[in-house]
Formats: sequence, C-alpha cells, structure tokens
Amino acid sequence: MAGAGESHGPAIVTIVFGCPPGLWLERAAIQAQLDRRRPGSTRHGTPRREADRVALLAGLYQDDHAALTAGPPVSLEEQTAGSYEAGYTTGEPIAAVVLSTAGKSDHYDPFRGESGVVRPGHTDLVKHHQSGGHADIRGGGRSSYRATISDVIGGAVARLYLAQAFGTVLVSSVSQVGPLRAARTLAEAVGKLGPHVAPEQSAALLAAVEATWQGVGIPTLDAEFAAAAADLIKRTRVEGDSLGAAVEVVALNPPALAGDPLYHSLKLRLMGSLGGLHAAQACEIGDGAAVAERRGSDNNDPIRGTGYTTNSHGGLLGGITTGNPLVARVSFKPTSSIVRPQLSVRKNLDEIDFELGKGRHDPCVGVRAGVTLEARMAIEVMNAALMHAARHPNPDDYRLFSAE
Amino acid sequence: MAGAGESHGPAIVTIVFGCPPGLWLERAAIQAQLDRRRPGSTRHGTPRREADRVALLAGLYQDDHAALTAGPPVSLEEQTAGSYEAGYTTGEPIAAVVLSTAGKSDHYDPFRGESGVVRPGHTDLVKHHQSGGHADIRGGGRSSYRATISDVIGGAVARLYLAQAFGTVLVSSVSQVGPLRAARTLAEAVGKLGPHVAPEQSAALLAAVEATWQGVGIPTLDAEFAAAAADLIKRTRVEGDSLGAAVEVVALNPPALAGDPLYHSLKLRLMGSLGGLHAAQACEIGDGAAVAERRGSDNNDPIRGTGYTTNSHGGLLGGITTGNPLVARVSFKPTSSIVRPQLSVRKNLDEIDFELGKGRHDPCVGVRAGVTLEARMAIEVMNAALMHAARHPNPDDYRLFSAE
Amino acid sequence: MAGAGESHGPAIVTIVFGCPPGLWLERAAIQAQLDRRRPGSTRHGTPRREADRVALLAGLYQDDHAALTAGPPVSLEEQTAGSYEAGYTTGEPIAAVVLSTAGKSDHYDPFRGESGVVRPGHTDLVKHHQSGGHADIRGGGRSSYRATISDVIGGAVARLYLAQAFGTVLVSSVSQVGPLRAARTLAEAVGKLGPHVAPEQSAALLAAVEATWQGVGIPTLDAEFAAAAADLIKRTRVEGDSLGAAVEVVALNPPALAGDPLYHSLKLRLMGSLGGLHAAQACEIGDGAAVAERRGSDNNDPIRGTGYTTNSHGGLLGGITTGNPLVARVSFKPTSSIVRPQLSVRKNLDEIDFELGKGRHDPCVGVRAGVTLEARMAIEVMNAALMHAARHPNPDDYRLFSAE
Amino acid sequence: MAGAGESHGPAIVTIVFGCPPGLWLERAAIQAQLDRRRPGSTRHGTPRREADRVALLAGLYQDDHAALTAGPPVSLEEQTAGSYEAGYTTGEPIAAVVLSTAGKSDHYDPFRGESGVVRPGHTDLVKHHQSGGHADIRGGGRSSYRATISDVIGGAVARLYLAQAFGTVLVSSVSQVGPLRAARTLAEAVGKLGPHVAPEQSAALLAAVEATWQGVGIPTLDAEFAAAAADLIKRTRVEGDSLGAAVEVVALNPPALAGDPLYHSLKLRLMGSLGGLHAAQACEIGDGAAVAERRGSDNNDPIRGTGYTTNSHGGLLGGITTGNPLVARVSFKPTSSIVRPQLSVRKNLDEIDFELGKGRHDPCVGVRAGVTLEARMAIEVMNAALMHAARHPNPDDYRLFSAE
Repeated sequence: MAGAGESHGPAIVTIVFGCPPGLWLERAAIQAQLDRRRPGSTRHGTPRREADRVALLAGLYQDDHAALTAGPPVSLEEQTAGSYEAGYTTGEPIAAVVLSTAGKSDHYDPFRGESGVVRPGHTDLVKHHQSGGHADIRGGGRSSYRATISDVIGGAVARLYLAQAFGTVLVSSVSQVGPLRAARTLAEAVGKLGPHVAPEQSAALLAAVEATWQGVGIPTLDAEFAAAAADLIKRTRVEGDSLGAAVEVVALNPPALAGDPLYHSLKLRLMGSLGGLHAAQACEIGDGAAVAERRGSDNNDPIRGTGYTTNSHGGLLGGITTGNPLVARVSFKPTSSIVRPQLSVRKNLDEIDFELGKGRHDPCVGVRAGVTLEARMAIEVMNAALMHAARHPNPDDYRLFSAE
Repeated sequence: MAGAGESHGPAIVTIVFGCPPGLWLERAAIQAQLDRRRPGSTRHGTPRREADRVALLAGLYQDDHAALTAGPPVSLEEQTAGSYEAGYTTGEPIAAVVLSTAGKSDHYDPFRGESGVVRPGHTDLVKHHQSGGHADIRGGGRSSYRATISDVIGGAVARLYLAQAFGTVLVSSVSQVGPLRAARTLAEAVGKLGPHVAPEQSAALLAAVEATWQGVGIPTLDAEFAAAAADLIKRTRVEGDSLGAAVEVVALNPPALAGDPLYHSLKLRLMGSLGGLHAAQACEIGDGAAVAERRGSDNNDPIRGTGYTTNSHGGLLGGITTGNPLVARVSFKPTSSIVRPQLSVRKNLDEIDFELGKGRHDPCVGVRAGVTLEARMAIEVMNAALMHAARHPNPDDYRLFSAE
Repeated sequence: MAGAGESHGPAIVTIVFGCPPGLWLERAAIQAQLDRRRPGSTRHGTPRREADRVALLAGLYQDDHAALTAGPPVSLEEQTAGSYEAGYTTGEPIAAVVLSTAGKSDHYDPFRGESGVVRPGHTDLVKHHQSGGHADIRGGGRSSYRATISDVIGGAVARLYLAQAFGTVLVSSVSQVGPLRAARTLAEAVGKLGPHVAPEQSAALLAAVEATWQGVGIPTLDAEFAAAAADLIKRTRVEGDSLGAAVEVVALNPPALAGDPLYHSLKLRLMGSLGGLHAAQACEIGDGAAVAERRGSDNNDPIRGTGYTTNSHGGLLGGITTGNPLVARVSFKPTSSIVRPQLSVRKNLDEIDFELGKGRHDPCVGVRAGVTLEARMAIEVMNAALMHAARHPNPDDYRLFSAE
Repeated sequence: MAGAGESHGPAIVTIVFGCPPGLWLERAAIQAQLDRRRPGSTRHGTPRREADRVALLAGLYQDDHAALTAGPPVSLEEQTAGSYEAGYTTGEPIAAVVLSTAGKSDHYDPFRGESGVVRPGHTDLVKHHQSGGHADIRGGGRSSYRATISDVIGGAVARLYLAQAFGTVLVSSVSQVGPLRAARTLAEAVGKLGPHVAPEQSAALLAAVEATWQGVGIPTLDAEFAAAAADLIKRTRVEGDSLGAAVEVVALNPPALAGDPLYHSLKLRLMGSLGGLHAAQACEIGDGAAVAERRGSDNNDPIRGTGYTTNSHGGLLGGITTGNPLVARVSFKPTSSIVRPQLSVRKNLDEIDFELGKGRHDPCVGVRAGVTLEARMAIEVMNAALMHAARHPNPDDYRLFSAE
C-alpha cells in the first residue's frame, strides 16, 4: 500500500497493491471503515467535522459499466469523471482519494519559519531540520494522524479479502484509559477460542464493542469501564490535559501457516506495523510483557488435535500463524497537544514558554485507534497469506492453450 | 513511483516517492510534459481528445498558502479542495491525479466475457485468463498506454531535479519510422560531446527536435526524414495498417559515478525501464547491437583528462555513469490495432476471423514515445544518483542540538 | 542484510549490504560480538561448545594483500583460500561464513516424518505443515536462535560504522528474570542524558554491565539483581523448568534526524526488528506501556536548547531520531524447551504426552539476547541514517572529469 | 538472489531466496551449470584454471542426514563441516560458496592508488572515484565477470524448478561473432513452435548446441558458422585484439500467464536482467529491433486455438507470458582487455599511453555468456511464476487443525 497527503493538504491519496483479482468490493464497505476512523465520529474525539468521503479511481471492474461508475463524481475544473461504486478487483492497483475541506490556516502563523514555535511531543522540530526547512507546518503535515486514512482504506480491502477467503474477523477493544483498566479484555475473551471460531461468537464480541461505542463513545468489551473512561476523558479535557490508553486487537480465524521465520516473520511485521503507529510506545503479542515473569511450564501452550488449548503465544509461533486467534495490544501515549503550559523552543532552538491556543484536540487518541490497528493487522496478515501462496504454485494456473 | 488507473477508468493516480526536500516544483512544469505525451498533441497521433490536466494533491509546500493551493480545484460531490499550484517539495510523497473524460463504452460489447473477441497483439487474452475473467476490457484496461501518464509525471519531477542539481538535459529523437531511417541521429550528434555539455549545445538539439515536431508532428533531428515519415504514416493509416519506429533518448550532463555493478546496475535499470515500455521490442545502450561486429581496438573509447573522447559505451561502464552523455535507443513494434482482417480467437479460444471496427488508432506509437522514454530515463538516473548519496553521508546532516 | 543456514546445517552464511566504502573493518571486531552471543559464553547459557569462528569472504580491501587475506584459511577439499582479516569496506557486499561443528543427530529420530513429535512452544508443527513436510527437523532448522549469528555480524558492521560516524554507543542490560526485577535500569540511567553523551559516561555503563557478566553471567547494571537472578536460573534449571526475562537496549549519541514518518518510520522498524526476535512477546520504546496510564502534562518531554530534558519519547518522535538516547525494552518468554512433561501432538495431530529427553537447554534465553538486540538496533539506525543521506545529495560527489 | 565476492577474493558467496519447498536438488546439477560457465571450459575462453567447485551450506534437507551432508567438506582452521550433497529444498534460503584459488597478485602493482593506471573499457576509473579510493583493484573486483557465478547458481535452481513444474527447457546459441553471423538461429528454429514443445524437439536443439561446443568450443546451432567463428577468434587473439558477439536465449514451454503490465512486467525484468549483464549493449525480445521497419499486418502474430502461430512477440504480450517460447537476443561488446596500445589515464586523470601486459584474456566474452543468460532468464521466469501464484491462493494451503 502506498499513501500520500498532508493533514491540511487537498487530499489523502492511497494506492493498494496486490489484491488478487475477483474480490467483490463496494465503496460503501470502505466508507464504513473510514466512518469509524473519523475524528468527529465519537463524542470523545476531536469535534472537527471531517466527511472523509472516499472516491475509488482505479482497480475495479464489472461488465455493467453504469453500475461500476456510479460512485461520487470527481471533478477537476470542467472535467468530471464517475468514480467506482462497486466491482470486482482486477488484480491491478486500487486507487482511492479522500478530499480535505481545508479550513483557514491563519492560525498557523506562529509555526512558520525558523522562529516558528515547536509543540512538545510533536514532530515539528525534527521535520523542520530534517527537510531543510521545507516541512509542511499545517497540522503536522505528512506526520498527521490523518495519514492513517490510507491504512484504513488498505485495511478495508484486506479485511474483506480475509473474510471471504478464510472467514477471518477483526475486533478491537480499548482496555485502558489513563489509570483505568478494563476488567473484561479481548485477550481473556478469546483466550480459550481455538482455530475455528463460530460466527455467533465473533458476532457477540463485535456487538459488545459496538454497544459501548454507540453508548458512551468508547469501543470496548467492558461497559462499566467504558462509562468511567468516558467520564474521565471529559474531565481531563476540561482540565486542558490528555490521557494515554491501551487498545487490544485480535483476528479470529486467521489463515494458518502464514508468515516466515526471521526477517519476514509475521510477528516482526505486526510488531512493527502496530507498534509503529502514531503515538504508540509499546506493542505486545499474545500475553506480551507478562511472559517475562513466568516459567516455561506455565507459559507453553498445550497442543491438542483441535488446536492450542491456550493462547499465550497469541497465534504466532516463530513468526508463523498457528490458526489460533492473533492477539495484540498497543499502548498509546497521551495526546501531545495539551492546553497546559510547557517548556519548548523555537525551531532555531531559542527557548520559550509554550502555550497552545485553545483548539479542537482529541484528549485521548487511543480511543479511536482500534480501527487503524485492525486495518494494519489485516494488511499484514493478508500480505503473509499471499506470500505463502508462492510456496504452493498450482500448475493449472499457468495454462492458456491446451495441448492438442 | 507508484501508479494506478485504467485506460477508461475515472483517473490515472500517481505517487512519486523519494524526491529530496527543497525542489521548487510548479504544476505547469508537469503539465508541459503531459501535453507532450498527449495523443491528440500531434496530427499523427490518435485523434482522441484528452485534456490530461494534472492536479497535485500532496507533497508540496510553501508558506504562502494561497499561492500553494492555487491549482485547479478538485471536487467530490459537495466537497472542494484547492490542489497545489507550486511549492517546494517536502521530501514526502507527491501525489497527482489526471481525470479521464470517459466516453461511451457501448462499443466494447464484443469484448465482454468468455466469448469476447481477442485483438491480436494486445493483452486481451492473457489478462483475461490471468485474472480469472476479471480484467477491465475497456481499451486495454491497466495495460493501456495511458498508464504512462504516471511515468511522465514522475519523470517531470526527476528531470527538474536533475536539471537543478547537475544541469542534466534530456532529449529524444525519432530515428526510424518503418523502413525510413533518419540520416542525422542523436547518437552521432552527441557522440563527441564529453561530460560538460554547454547550454547552447543542448538548446540547439532541443530546438531542432521541436521544429520538426511543430512542423510535421515527428520530433526528430532530421527534418528531411521527418517529412518523409509523416507522409508515410499518413498513407499507412489510410491503408488501415500501422508502422514500427525507433526512438533515441539521451541525457546530457548526467551525474557521474551513479549506479552500481550487477543487480543495481544503472545499465540494467535503463535496459529494463526503457526496453520494458509498451510495444518496445529492443533496447540498446551506446552503440548497441552494432558492437557485436566490432573488434575491441575499434570499440574501446579512449580516455583523456577531460572525459572519454568517444561514446561507444553510451555513458555507462559496469553500470556506473562516466559523465559522458547517456545514450539509448528503443525499437517499437507497429501499433497492434489495425483495420486489416486478422486471424484470432475468442477468449474461450474459439477461432475467429477478426476485424477491428473503424477506430481512432495511432498508426505509429513510436512517434510519441520520446517523452515517456525521457521520463523513464530521468527517473532511473535520479534513483541511481540518490542511492549514490548513501555512500557519502555527511555527519553535519545529522545534528539537531549543538553540544554545549 | 541477508542470511541463510540452519541450526545443525554446515554453516550460517551472511551477506551485509550497503555499508559505505571506507570503513576500516577488522575480523576481530566481528568475532568479539559473536563471542558475546555464543551460548557457551555464559555459565547460565547452554553448555554446548560452539566456537562460532567467523571467516570474511567478500567486501574488504586494502592494498597490502597479504595483510588483507591473513584471516583463517577456508578449505573446500583440495582448494584453500585465505579469508579477509582486515580492510576497508569497498561499498560492495560483505560476506561472512560461520561453520557449525555438527554433532551426532541420532537423537532427532523421534522428530522425523508425519509421526514425529511436536515440541510445545516451538515451530515444529507449523514449519512441517507450511513446507509440505520438507522442514529441517534438526534443532529448529532455520528457525533456530543460531540464525541470529547473521544479525550479530551485520550489527557488528553497523555499530562500527555508527561509532566512527557519530560516536554512537550501544548498551544492553537485563532488567528482569522471571519475577525478579532490577532496581537499576538503563532507562533510568540514561533518562537524563541528552544528545551529547560523554565517552566516560557510556564507558561507565559498559563497565557496569561487563562486571556482572564476568561475575555471575548476567549482563546488567544491577549487581544485586544479577546475583539473585543467577541463583534463580540455576535453581530453575535443576527443576527442569525455564524463565522469562526482559532486556533493555539503548543507543547513546545516535544520529539525529534519521527516520521517516509512517511506513519507513524508525520506530516502526525498531518495534519490528527488536520485537520480532525469537521468543520476544513485547517491545517498548521510551517509557513503553507505562505511558498509557499518564496524562500529557506528565508525559510530554520539555525541550531546551540543548535537547529534550527527559526521554519519555525514547529518542524518537514521529519515527525520527531527536538525538536523545534511543531506548527500548523487549520481553522474552521462558525458553520453550523444558524437561517437565507437557501435552502435545505428533505432526499428524495425534495427541501425545510429551517429555523432552534431558538436553542441553538454555533455561533463560533472555540472558544472552542483549548482543542481538544491540545488533538489530544498530542495523536499523544505520539504515535510517543512510536513507537520510539521500535527502541531501552533495553535487561534489558526482564529479569525475573537471570542466576544462 | 543475493551475491557477494570479488574476482580475486576468497570466494563468491550466493544466497538464493524464495524457492518453494519440496524441490529435489543435487549439488551435481548446480556444478554442471558452473562447469559450463567456467572460463577454462572452452579452448576459446581464458586459459585460467578455475575449478569453481560449489559447496552448499544451507537450505536443503532430507531425513537421511548422512546422504544430506555428503558434499565436499568445508574447513575453517580446526573446524570441518560436511556440506550438502542432495536434499529437498525447505523453502528457506539456499546458500552456496565457491572458493577462489587466488594466485599471486603482484602484477596488480601498476593499478594501485591514485596514480594507478586505468584500463579502457573497464570500471577501474568509475569504481575508484565512486568508492573514494576503496575499490578492490584486483581483476575488476566486484565488477568482474566472476560475479556471474551467483547468477548461474540461482539459475541452476530456477531451471530445475521450471523443468519440474512446467517442463520448461532453456537453450542458448551464439548467433554472431564479430562480422560473422550464424545462418541458423534459435529464433528461426523455435519460431514455429507453439506452447507445447515435445521433449524430442528441445533435445534436438540442445544436442546441436552441445555438438559445436564440444567440437570447436562455440555453442551454437550452426556448425559451419561455429568453425569459422572459432578460427576468427583464434586469429584475433594472436593479433592482440578481441571480438564482439551476439547470443540468443530461449525458454521452451514457459509457464503461461506469468508477469504483469508495467513495472513488474516480465519483459521489463528480462530486458534489464539480460541486457544488464556485463559487456551487453543491447537486448532484443522476440523479433527485436527488426520490428521497427515493419507494418502491423506483417508483425501481429495470428492466434489459433492451439497458440500463436508465429512468434514475433517472443512469448510476451504486455509483459505477460503467452506460453509460446520466450525468445531474446543479447549483443556483447568485444572484450575490453586487449594487448594493443590505447589512450588512457591514471586514476588521478593524468593522461598516459596504456599498454596491457600480456595476460590471459578471453578475446570474445560472448562465447561463454549463454549459460549466464539462461540462468538469468530462468530466475526472472521463476520469479514471475511465483508472483502469479499469489493471485490464486488456495484456502486448503492455510489449514492446520481441522474443525471438530
């Protein structure tokens, strides 16, 4: 997947590579994931209004051309083209554009140039010096969380593919907000599930998370925790401060036998992709950091003919999927943008007392990270699955003309 | 560089990676290259009208935000965003969109499904079977020459970069159309030029090619040949047939010392990139296939303190640039779409007599290939140049805070 | 870096790519790192004797050919070649071979074929099915920890490069063994160090770790913890069980401004590379999972003209180095090979009671993971640094012949 | 595939990635290809004696460990390991080492340092300046033709794989030596062969080439041409000069439907890989440069239900295999090392009259290029075939535990 686009630039542009041909893809399925990601989509997120409407510009096809191109029309001055609404993937790159409705950017004046101020916890300083002064200062530029639109689009394709090919289901749940911890976690809920999770089991998990999301705006398995966390976030915002969080993500019914040892290990890829997300400071697979204090006799997962009976390993052994649920948890730092005064510098390193103007800042970025974690997990699992296919080429796929 | 988009899809989407920060880039400079590429831009090309207007959606910045976003507005239903008109590159990906004004596609009915007809010389048959029947049948789909819009956009950035950093100038010239061969070639014209070509010399070459392009629609150094070739193309079109061609491409004042031996050899990259273009069947570097008949004493280029005095090597030794002009030639097959009847099959391999309906077909695709060859050469040279930079990191570029 | 080789195969073969030319490299410097990695090198590791002697077969040069090729001679039947002892890197790939002294492998009989037994916690089962029955069953085959020889060799080159170019120093320290936690940690020890760490400061850290390593075989800053951990490991081994561990790794004086946002983020690369190591279940950068419970006003690191005054961010903001020490921690599961009986299956999924024969197993793999973590961190930092160089090409590096 | 090693260094080290598990591989099959490549293997090649004995150090397995490790023992001082003689590929990297029997290198004195002399046509000058003076001066260092040992090893694996999976057979034939051209060419011989070539047909081609190779040392279909070429080479060597050549390479029964349009086009990959080989100046696919002079009605290949009836396209349309034989031709410059005096410089650009001491130089490098071209073609075709497999993943390959 390739992406481009800055926080306040005209658009986020995404190209998704390598999806096999023949997957039925509807724009609405991608839009649904983007709607989950959108900051304005929760009362605890930033109050910015972002429509984040996606237009698909390449990679789909169906013989009914009118139905194919029934998506939102895209215009460029006098030209107008109908974007794709639904079709089968062709095996060629899928392209998507999400426009920004760029607002005024006058309030970025303090950030301009060598004497521009640096926001603690942000990339302002390093990007300025790394680029020789040519970084986009508007809202974090390319480093903005808005760039995860590309992840979510790529992930929407990947989760559809995985669902159709293997019945894979992705779920995420907030497990911690500041000092508050959920009593009910995904790791525990799926810990006894083997490699064949029934649809009603995954539906129940999805419904539980959806309920707290619709209810108090915190997608989590634990309704009581959700209410307390929502309250804490509200109070913290009023105080001009922010909160860290932890989010679990799992894949039920992942394809088994995907991944490699060592450099193409799926564990390596997931640790990087999940732990490399904006604001993440830790990534754990399976039982995570807790394994350090254990003995092997407690930690090794027993194996029966129907699967591993426990899941300390989190679905991966030696970087390869066992078929048990993939389980990961990511810890996010508190949102860096806070109203409270801080010590900082200008880009020329002159020291200043920094105070952020009142803005529209999301006090707990972790709350809406789940959809992106699901997307990144889906992408890595799909990539590993496709790489595994290259171990088992089927000669029938290479025939065109039959022998006489 | 990454690209996406089908011949008759809504858009060609392009993302250009890795351009260093600080290059001043104007949309007009990219548009100028696209205008050279556009089929309707020559009377010998296809009569299709394609505006191919480019909008830049990511990767530029300047502090004057109004000037930055003065490009053509892009709309997606109720949303409108101002695209970039000019700015400095930030080091982040540059994204561009070129919309299609898709016409009616009713005339694609004969090509649909298992019993769709196969056009000889095209990818219809292999794409259909490769994709399990999910290939886009409209105008060659992803395999269309229209995909070279991405090359030209990437090449426009690369040629600007190379011009500013090294004074590099790219020139191409048609040297053959069917049986007609130019008496004056680029290889000969630049053969005696060393590693420091004066601006007036490169300007003279560019002017000569521009003159025949504006005159008879064949960009070449040889005006007499141009006239004869233009005439031959016109006659061949009337006969419902098409013509092959050969095109030379050179880079004057390329950066020296770029490229590697073996697998990252710039020769390998150029042979692939130029020779891999649509309809190309041969690629030659320097004196090309003619060297096979020579002796070493005739072929080795003597070296003096100011450069190689001849250029049989075409500017590359062991895959590394010597600083002498890079010289290549590519041979293109005749356009596959011809009106004359041919033997073919349906996609299900039923045999048919095939006759193409009268269409708007470019009888000699080579005539407009030069701009794409220049673009591909520029991209490969820039890539090799940037890779060379990683051999000489400068510790000053890694300092942020100074020691007390 | 590319590697090949199985646990009990003839050799581990390593090729290191991309090291700039001109780095003086002695075989002894690589051997020293391999000696730290070697299982037999600590009384708490496995008692297997592995010499792990490295021979360098490519990529070095000096004009004194006798000195260049004074390394251990490598023989292949009647042929003998002198391997490289010392030289400057040429910019071309560096190749190294470490032979194995393969012992008897009769004791692998129970693991052969479809009815071979599966060791819980190992890759036996997934590798068998993934490879269609063609996995190497000897000692974990390619998935063995022995494959980290390649990491250590690549890391030895990278740490030398970083030391010479930037004064970078890598240190690691065991911070937890089972339930025991070190009172003195690297994170705390370097937390107040800014971007310019004095040589005596880093030397003191290295000396402290070396002391406990030489003393009780646990390389850690905390001598008291080391003694207790050594004792616990000894007791656990006697009980036929194993222990988890956590290990910190830091880079002092890293190059600033290296890394990218998003997909080439150095944070992403480090999370993947460190957290992807054998037996790792968690990776934390900076203050790691602890940030989830904080408020932004506690977590944001204040910035002064001489650097960040605290290091919750662990040296990385937005995936880019700030110059402050890079700080990471990795949690390892207990060694999977334990003598205690466990539930398992045969490869054909028949259920069995599994009992490992008495073997020579390392009861706490984390104890010797530090050298590999340092190696992997060095490789990722060097890669990011070289990629940054491509943002600032210097035109002087592209001149060969001067203009007249 | 990754390679390392210099012309006169201790070894050429090769790692082959991505071969699917389960291919039976014998060391002898790789050695047979290396024997074809070896300079001393023809009377017209360089008279240097190079044994080029290969040892396999990783990537094979069979349960009979004694048979597995019956290859030539490799020694490193006191250590000795048995290398692999035969086994199934495991899906993990395959490593091979070929030692050099480095001779004296005193005669390289004139090439040392800033005042070292530069051999025209070689990489001495560019490598010296590119590496800041750290290039290996012995025999071309990494840029030596000896590096093609890696290609031949990788190609030996690939041709075995292609033969077993698809019945693919690779053949090459010298078609030109200096001004002499073969009357019988591979292109013509296979031009009428469709996608299903009978074993006896390919065997006949192989036998014809083998006959001239054994007879006069020129592997070609045309015995009369072979005799004349052998004579011309002998005379040219006596005159202290060298000769160019052209070599054809074909793959019969290639897998159909492999390759992609555009950037992963198999045409692009082949043009680059074949045309990027040492001393190559041109690469042609199918009818090559000759198509430029044709009309479409002559050039389009008619299609019948059993395949394309002619093969102007050389087995590739739009970068995808049609199943018809893959056909390519590569033109090589005359060997750069000639005894005749030439104008050159020292590395510091001081001008000199250059005269090569009498050496052991191959006067026509093209004569032994066929085996490397076959290897490179096999590698590219295998890569494209494996990539195609990722378009058609089979859900059965992702099951480990069955549902209860």
